[in-house]
Amino acid sequence: MNINIRKGEKVDCVRMMELVRELALYEKAPNEVTVDLDHFIESGFGPNPVWWAYVAEITNEDNSKHIVGFALYYIRYSTWKGQRMYLEDIIVTESMRGNGIGKKLFDQLILVCKEQQFKGITWQVLEWNEPAINFYKKFDGVQFDGEWVNCSL
Amino acid sequence: MNINIRKGEKVDCVRMMELVRELALYEKAPNEVTVDLDHFIESGFGPNPVWWAYVAEITNEDNSKHIVGFALYYIRYSTWKGQRMYLEDIIVTESMRGNGIGKKLFDQLILVCKEQQFKGITWQVLEWNEPAINFYKKFDGVQFDGEWVNCSL
Repeated sequence: MNINIRKGEKVDCVRMMELVRELALYEKAPNEVTVDLDHFIESGFGPNPVWWAYVAEITNEDNSKHIVGFALYYIRYSTWKGQRMYLEDIIVTESMRGNGIGKKLFDQLILVCKEQQFKGITWQVLEWNEPAINFYKKFDGVQFDGEWVNCSL
Repeated sequence: MNINIRKGEKVDCVRMMELVRELALYEKAPNEVTVDLDHFIESGFGPNPVWWAYVAEITNEDNSKHIVGFALYYIRYSTWKGQRMYLEDIIVTESMRGNGIGKKLFDQLILVCKEQQFKGITWQVLEWNEPAINFYKKFDGVQFDGEWVNCSL
């Protein structure tokens, strides 16, 4: 299987949103997705982008291409550490898991962090999401901290 | 006491960093603050700002001014909700607590959210930090979610 990791473009947004919905279903919160496609595109590709993404694309036998996963991040500012990458989503569609696609996406993010001199990557995982936690444990030096509570208003 | 809430400026950064260190001590992690002042200033007031802040300033009897607290945020992009404010820090120096300064700062953030049409505010609190949790509970509609684990690399 030919898997290519490349920067996400405007035309990928519709498919990315499909994958977001797939993940929300898995995380038992399908109704929580209220973002609108135009606003999603504007936030990533308008004059002041606030998110960036990499997509994993496979090439089929007839040479057509299909996006099967992506990683989306923004820059967070920590008053303790400085600029860090915040990994908002890393998604591989269910039927394509177990092919090392998630690892390829994650490796790409690590590369971006080094290039942009970010002080690391942070993200969150649901405490019951064991497959994801086991995936993250494969990377040297990942730290887990369950002492914080998320708040929102 | 005359308390003024205003936008944080470049000249405020040294004092803001002092307050960051005070908070880190309270959160039992004084050695975790490794950010450097130049980088802090550049990230807030360089060509591509990634954080914004409001400061709480008191005026003394001799008309001198002194910053006693601040709130610092960045824009996060949620693939579920769209653009939201992430409240990185809200700090009031210990000797000045109980004067409603934190509430004034928080009210200012709510105002900014409305003006910029953000889809809400998110932040985190340490699960043992009862005074902070009780403070947040004063605001209508605040939700707490302890189901997520922070990860970093």
